[in-house]
Amino acid sequence: MRAAPSPEEIRTRNLATLLRHVHRDGAVSRATLAERMGLNRSTILALTTDLAAAGLVSEELPGQTGRAGRPSLVVRPRERRVYVVALDVGADRLAAARVGLGGTVLDRGETARPSGAFDPEDVIAALVEMARAMIDAAAADSVCVGVGVAFCGMVREEDGVVRYGPNIGWVDVAFGAKMTEQLDLGLRVAVGNNANLGALAERERGVGEGLANLIYLHGDVGIGGGIIMNGELLGGEGGYCGEVGHMIVNPRGRPCACGSRGCFEAEAGELGLIAAAGRTDPPGQAAVDAIVEAAARGDAAARDALHQVGEWLGYGVANLVNIFNPSMVVFGGVLREIYLASAAQVRSRVAVNGLQAVRERVRLRTSTLGGDATLIGAAELAFTDVLTDPLQTLARTAAARA
Amino acid sequence: MRAAPSPEEIRTRNLATLLRHVHRDGAVSRATLAERMGLNRSTILALTTDLAAAGLVSEELPGQTGRAGRPSLVVRPRERRVYVVALDVGADRLAAARVGLGGTVLDRGETARPSGAFDPEDVIAALVEMARAMIDAAAADSVCVGVGVAFCGMVREEDGVVRYGPNIGWVDVAFGAKMTEQLDLGLRVAVGNNANLGALAERERGVGEGLANLIYLHGDVGIGGGIIMNGELLGGEGGYCGEVGHMIVNPRGRPCACGSRGCFEAEAGELGLIAAAGRTDPPGQAAVDAIVEAAARGDAAARDALHQVGEWLGYGVANLVNIFNPSMVVFGGVLREIYLASAAQVRSRVAVNGLQAVRERVRLRTSTLGGDATLIGAAELAFTDVLTDPLQTLARTAAARA
Repeated sequence: MRAAPSPEEIRTRNLATLLRHVHRDGAVSRATLAERMGLNRSTILALTTDLAAAGLVSEELPGQTGRAGRPSLVVRPRERRVYVVALDVGADRLAAARVGLGGTVLDRGETARPSGAFDPEDVIAALVEMARAMIDAAAADSVCVGVGVAFCGMVREEDGVVRYGPNIGWVDVAFGAKMTEQLDLGLRVAVGNNANLGALAERERGVGEGLANLIYLHGDVGIGGGIIMNGELLGGEGGYCGEVGHMIVNPRGRPCACGSRGCFEAEAGELGLIAAAGRTDPPGQAAVDAIVEAAARGDAAARDALHQVGEWLGYGVANLVNIFNPSMVVFGGVLREIYLASAAQVRSRVAVNGLQAVRERVRLRTSTLGGDATLIGAAELAFTDVLTDPLQTLARTAAARA
Repeated sequence: MRAAPSPEEIRTRNLATLLRHVHRDGAVSRATLAERMGLNRSTILALTTDLAAAGLVSEELPGQTGRAGRPSLVVRPRERRVYVVALDVGADRLAAARVGLGGTVLDRGETARPSGAFDPEDVIAALVEMARAMIDAAAADSVCVGVGVAFCGMVREEDGVVRYGPNIGWVDVAFGAKMTEQLDLGLRVAVGNNANLGALAERERGVGEGLANLIYLHGDVGIGGGIIMNGELLGGEGGYCGEVGHMIVNPRGRPCACGSRGCFEAEAGELGLIAAAGRTDPPGQAAVDAIVEAAARGDAAARDALHQVGEWLGYGVANLVNIFNPSMVVFGGVLREIYLASAAQVRSRVAVNGLQAVRERVRLRTSTLGGDATLIGAAELAFTDVLTDPLQTLARTAAARA
C-alpha cells in the first residue's frame, strides 16, 4: 500500500492516459479528452503540446462539424513516425507486422514454418530477418519504439524465457534475450503468450472491444487461453494463467502431448478433430478446413467428428463460463472454424451445464481480427512502454539510434 | 481512463491507506508508516491526528525498543470503539461475530440451522436477533461501522440479492435489502459469496497472508471457490466468478443439484463422499468426520470412499492450478478434513496432470482460520466503507445513531 503519487508522476500518468485515448481511438478532440479525463482545457493543451513536441501526436482542425463556435482541435497519433514491430510464432507459421501508433498495420508479412526441426536458432534468425526488412523499409525520420513477440507456449514474462512450447518442442529457451541481442536495436524485445496477447487485441480492437470480463481461446495445434477480468489480463504467479488447454474434460479421453489424458486441447482442438475424423493429415488450418468442408458436403465421418469435438468444446466452455463468469468467450485461430461448424453442440452444452445466473450474461463469438489477433496483440505489447511513459520512452529510443 | 486524483481525493486515499495498515497489522509505528507509504513524518502526523480525532486510532509510546533516540509513536486501531457485525449463513449453521477494527473477534455466537424448511424470513429473523444482541451488548460509546454477511450461494453483490442458493433452496431472494430494512441501523448490509469472503480472510489474516494469487475452496454441502489474482478478488461479470463447484470433472459422474452430472462438488464434496462410502447420514461436518474417523480405524468402505473422492478432488485442483497458476490453494470448511484424509491422491493427481512450470509454484494448504474463514471474511467486507473513506463513514454512522 503506497501513498498517493507525486506531481511528476501525475504528469507522466496524464500524458500516458491522453496518449492511450489517441492510440485507441485514432483521432480525439481536445474537448473530448478534457471530458473523458476530467481535466480542464488548459491542462489538456499543455499535455498535447508536450506530446506534439516529442513527435507523438499532431493537431489539426476537424472537418465540418455543423456546430457554431470555435471548433476543438483534433489530436491524432503520428502513425507513420512512431511504430512498433510485432512478431508471431505459431506452430505452423511465422508472421511479422510494422504497426503505427494508433494501431494501423503499415506493413505485414508471413512465412510458413521452416521445414524440418523447429530449431530456436532458425526461428530467431528468420524473425530477425523479417523484422530488419520492415525497419529498413520504414521512413528515415520514423522511430521504432518497441518490439513484441507472441509465442505459442508458456512464457516467463519478466525475461521472455519460453518455459514450455510442447507443440514446437521448446523447453527453457532464452528467447527474449536472444531476440534482443540479435536485433540489437537498444530495445528489450518483449515476449508474451499468444493467447494472452490475442485476448488483449480482441479487447482493444476486436469483437470484445471495451469488455471488462473476456475469455479468448486460441486454437493452434493446442488451445491457449487469455483471460481478462475486471479489465486486466490475468497473469497468475508466473504469468502462466490461462493454460486452459490442459484442463481435463474427459478423464478417460485421448492422450495429450503434456503427458495427461483427456485435456481440453486433446479433445476439442485440431488434433482431436483430425483423430476423430479418422484422418492422418498434418495438423494446421488446412486440415481443419478440409474436415469442415467435407462435413458441409455431407461426409458422415467429418460430421460425426465435428459433433463429437463440439461436445468437448462445449464441456470446456461451460466449465470456463462457470468458473469465470465472463461476458464473452471469443474463439480464435482454428477454433473459429471448429466453433462455427459445431456451434449447436457447444451452445447446447453451455445451456445444460452453465449455471443460469452465469449463462444469461455470456455471449459466444468468433474473433473479428481473424488470424491476426495474436499478431495485433504482440503490437499492443510492444506499445506498452510508450503508453506508460511517452516522453522518456521516446527520448530513450532516439538516444539508442544516435 | 481517468486523470490523476485531486488533492482532496489524495488525502482521503492516504487516510484510508494508513488505516488499512493499522487494521491489518494491529499496531504500527509512525516511522514504519512513513516508510511503507513513502510519505514524510509530518504528513503521517497530520493523518494520524485526523484519524485519532475521529476516534479511529490511538497513539502511544512503544515498549522498550533498545534503540537510542526519541522513539516513534505507535498507532493502534481503537478496536473496542469501532467495530462491525459479521454474519455467516452456511448450509447447516448460522454464525455471528462482533469484530473490532484491527480484526479482533470481540464476541461470537452460532446456532444450528433451524429445523424444517430454511425459509428466508426465518433465517433473516434469526440473523437480526443475533446481530441485535451483539450490538446491545457493546459499550455505549462504541460505534458499528458496517454489517457484512457471508452466504453459501450466488449473490449479486451490488444489491445483495441471492440469485441461487441450491443447497438451502433460495432463488432470487432480496436478502441484503431485507436485512438492511429489518436491522434498521442506517447502514446498508453488504452480502457476499462465502467462498469469496473466505479467500479474502485467508489472504488478510490466514494461511495465505499477503499472497497475490490464491484460490480458496470452501466445502459446505457444495464446493465454492474464491479466487484472488494479482491481489484482487475476481468478480466476473455479475460477481459470480469462482463457481468452481460446477466445473464438470467427470462427464459420466454423479448427478448434481444444479441439474448437471459429474460436477466437482458432486464428486469431491461431502455429498460425493457420503455416497461413495455407501452411507445415508445427513450432510454436514459430522458426517464427514465420521467417515474420516472410520477410515482411520481401518474401515475399508470409508478408505475406498476417501481414495475415490481424493482422485476427483485432485482432478479439480489440477485443473484450477493449470487454469489460474496460483501460488496457493487453500482448503476450507469440510474440505479441510477431506483433503487431509486424501492428500496423497490429491497430490499425486496434481503431480501427474499439472504442468511443470505451474506445479512448481503452488502449495496446497488447509485453512488456518478453521471454520471461521467465511465469518472473518464477512467482517472484512463490513469494514470496506471505513477503510475506503474513514472520516466520512464515521460521520455518517454517527449521524445515523443520533
